[in-house]
Amino acid sequence: MTDAPRITVWNENVHERHEAPIAAIYPDGIHGAIAEGLRASLPDATVVTATLEQPEHGLTDARLAETDVLFWWGHGAHDEVDEAIVERVAEHVLSGMGLVVLHSGHFSRIFIRLMGTTCSLRWRDDGDREVLWNVAPGHPITAGVPDPLVLGEHETYGEFFDVPPPDDLVFVSNFSGGEVFRSGLTYRRGRGRIFYFSPGDQKYPIYHRADIRRVLANAAVWAQPQSPRELPTVSHRPREWFTG
Amino acid sequence: MTDAPRITVWNENVHERHEAPIAAIYPDGIHGAIAEGLRASLPDATVVTATLEQPEHGLTDARLAETDVLFWWGHGAHDEVDEAIVERVAEHVLSGMGLVVLHSGHFSRIFIRLMGTTCSLRWRDDGDREVLWNVAPGHPITAGVPDPLVLGEHETYGEFFDVPPPDDLVFVSNFSGGEVFRSGLTYRRGRGRIFYFSPGDQKYPIYHRADIRRVLANAAVWAQPQSPRELPTVSHRPREWFTG
Amino acid sequence: MTDAPRITVWNENVHERHEAPIAAIYPDGIHGAIAEGLRASLPDATVVTATLEQPEHGLTDARLAETDVLFWWGHGAHDEVDEAIVERVAEHVLSGMGLVVLHSGHFSRIFIRLMGTTCSLRWRDDGDREVLWNVAPGHPITAGVPDPLVLGEHETYGEFFDVPPPDDLVFVSNFSGGEVFRSGLTYRRGRGRIFYFSPGDQKYPIYHRADIRRVLANAAVWAQPQSPRELPTVSHRPREWFTG
Amino acid sequence: MTDAPRITVWNENVHERHEAPIAAIYPDGIHGAIAEGLRASLPDATVVTATLEQPEHGLTDARLAETDVLFWWGHGAHDEVDEAIVERVAEHVLSGMGLVVLHSGHFSRIFIRLMGTTCSLRWRDDGDREVLWNVAPGHPITAGVPDPLVLGEHETYGEFFDVPPPDDLVFVSNFSGGEVFRSGLTYRRGRGRIFYFSPGDQKYPIYHRADIRRVLANAAVWAQPQSPRELPTVSHRPREWFTG
Repeated sequence: MTDAPRITVWNENVHERHEAPIAAIYPDGIHGAIAEGLRASLPDATVVTATLEQPEHGLTDARLAETDVLFWWGHGAHDEVDEAIVERVAEHVLSGMGLVVLHSGHFSRIFIRLMGTTCSLRWRDDGDREVLWNVAPGHPITAGVPDPLVLGEHETYGEFFDVPPPDDLVFVSNFSGGEVFRSGLTYRRGRGRIFYFSPGDQKYPIYHRADIRRVLANAAVWAQPQSPRELPTVSHRPREWFTG
Repeated sequence: MTDAPRITVWNENVHERHEAPIAAIYPDGIHGAIAEGLRASLPDATVVTATLEQPEHGLTDARLAETDVLFWWGHGAHDEVDEAIVERVAEHVLSGMGLVVLHSGHFSRIFIRLMGTTCSLRWRDDGDREVLWNVAPGHPITAGVPDPLVLGEHETYGEFFDVPPPDDLVFVSNFSGGEVFRSGLTYRRGRGRIFYFSPGDQKYPIYHRADIRRVLANAAVWAQPQSPRELPTVSHRPREWFTG
Repeated sequence: MTDAPRITVWNENVHERHEAPIAAIYPDGIHGAIAEGLRASLPDATVVTATLEQPEHGLTDARLAETDVLFWWGHGAHDEVDEAIVERVAEHVLSGMGLVVLHSGHFSRIFIRLMGTTCSLRWRDDGDREVLWNVAPGHPITAGVPDPLVLGEHETYGEFFDVPPPDDLVFVSNFSGGEVFRSGLTYRRGRGRIFYFSPGDQKYPIYHRADIRRVLANAAVWAQPQSPRELPTVSHRPREWFTG
Repeated sequence: MTDAPRITVWNENVHERHEAPIAAIYPDGIHGAIAEGLRASLPDATVVTATLEQPEHGLTDARLAETDVLFWWGHGAHDEVDEAIVERVAEHVLSGMGLVVLHSGHFSRIFIRLMGTTCSLRWRDDGDREVLWNVAPGHPITAGVPDPLVLGEHETYGEFFDVPPPDDLVFVSNFSGGEVFRSGLTYRRGRGRIFYFSPGDQKYPIYHRADIRRVLANAAVWAQPQSPRELPTVSHRPREWFTG
């Protein structure tokens, strides 16, 4: 495990181009802010971005083959992501590429494809205060992260969040209106590692925060492949496989 | 939880109709043998069968709505199962219907859909001896099951079995040629319970055995819905949801 | 699994005898209120009580051998529980007896003995509102339980709760002051099942509530042994164990 | 996470001093062979050893405070390990120190203390062939390890192994006589990481093998603390903890 993962930050990049208040928060796009934070936290990492409107959404096979960890932010345009590219990304994850899914990416095609559940949840947007608690204090994703992480005003996500039970439950959020949410979850799928992290609604300047950037950098280091990438495939093996 | 689940046993029913040796082992079909065992073990249960060649593969919405637990056996005809029906079954599972996937059903569309992984594995068919060990002795699926369960001659399945880490690892198999296999696995997905159980290759009279029938009956009781069925869906909730 | 478990409700029974306000809430003791609720919910169950001041704390080997599920409430007198009896209870749990640990029982000797961690947590008692959310909607312990379960005024418990990652995370609580707490947790240890459930501070009439009684009754049914009780012990087995 | 953990290898060091055949296999002790392998694999690590016969078994508070990862090999002398030192080691683990427990260390006081179960298993010693399979191919402990790892002749351990369900099941072993064993298991307890790895009976030259040394080096890197060490302790927090 090194501090130099090759990272691609993917964003649908729709809100920032069509809504002035969002553009004001994220003049370089949400992907730009995330990439900037990763570069600052991990000076040896290679960080590039890709967006929906690019050919093949910027996710060519060559690009993915050179990506150790893919970050994913999407919201209103989930249905515009091509199924063939979703399947391509899924194969890279199952082969060992890391995937970090952010906020409303819970409803992205790639996340539903890999989870197998509806990935639905409850929500409100009333400016409640969100507080994240670390329930896995030895976990590398939480290193150097304040506990609790008081996010302040944010969109409210609530349970039941219909995802498989995670390998590690890392963060749980309290919302001042009464909800809780499992806001940091890890999964192993195939040879790949997946981290879902719920903060990051477009209306709040979440990705400029130092504490959130610490979480994302930790996640990038944690999610990178541990061994050569290879898609698990069915294999027939002859009778004398190790005695011959 | 009752001992009277309503069970549908689904089988592609191909081997038995086209290969005389298989028909000799299972004159009433694999589904017939499984259903017979369930009826004998659970006298209060309602057990019906459904097969690939029936309209809608016998899995109409009405049928699934009246099914507490669906058993699934398939092998050579996975690709002939209609995607729309796979999605229908998936919705019933996520709503709370139990699902028991058997043997080569690891490569069925419904299992891959719900797991999100390749579900691939290693295999040989050399008549090795398989022995199943109970690694979760307090689990209800193992009640009354001999430990170990010496299956004798059977097809060999080997790791790596590319499925998500299970909620409960129940059985692990030893094969005389050197392989191991996680042969009994439980999953919670949405509101539904899933059990994968690997014994049951068509060339061996597995489903006539009393010990295997005990496992399947236990699985049927375990997998049935615990509460009213309902697909998890995204929900918006007003600000004053419990204080108003 | 039946609806007729044999239950012993254990309570240190100290607050009720020495503090008038607690005695007013629980005139028959906390154990009395819990037992009453279990009898009402499970008419076929056998429910008895045991308390600290009895010989052997009421937990003789004979009593435990006839107990399918032991409930445990303790707070100020954890240190007065004899270590030999703690070890006796632990052996029964590892042999298959169910255990339901309540509220401040997180610091009981039996819970620490079985968890292996400090079982420490954060707390305040400011009359915050507690709301429990069901994060495992298909789990039998949640059947018939309102979601959310709005507890209202209660003592505040907060993370980090130093327990092993649970097999199933069932409930998560929100407190109006900002904390979250994993308030319903299941564990399998040896052949036994353990459920920790955090509501139940002595100053609040928690155990008179119908929703809480539903949880406790579900837990009793869930935690009872699934097979004959037997302590896992090391065993030497001869070379020809199944071929001889 | 770095490649320079400070490691202490602890060994009861009894077989090697009293049995000539064991001394012939491990002239520098089992601890010496393990330490030699760690030094070769992790040139930047600091590796020291400690043994039972030393004052405080070589595990003073100062020594543990300077240990990132403690390896533990014991067999016949478990009962000679002082309870106070067991408790001291447990506190360091719960505070964040890594622990790697080897082979018959499954019955060490420290492992039982941290697991809470009997840690019993089945065994034979007939020179069966052991083969370890990687069931978590993306896990850092498996990086660079052959799959399968064909151990050849070794003592047989068999299920049921009475430990809590692990966080990650990493390796499963096949024995030629028919047993299986969960031979590589990870646990998070408090802030610390624990890895149990079953190969290593004193009669076989296991710890001289390159593949086994790779596993142990990976485990050392994986188990080291991710953040400052601190024992989780109960904490009272005032009402206005983040609004004041």
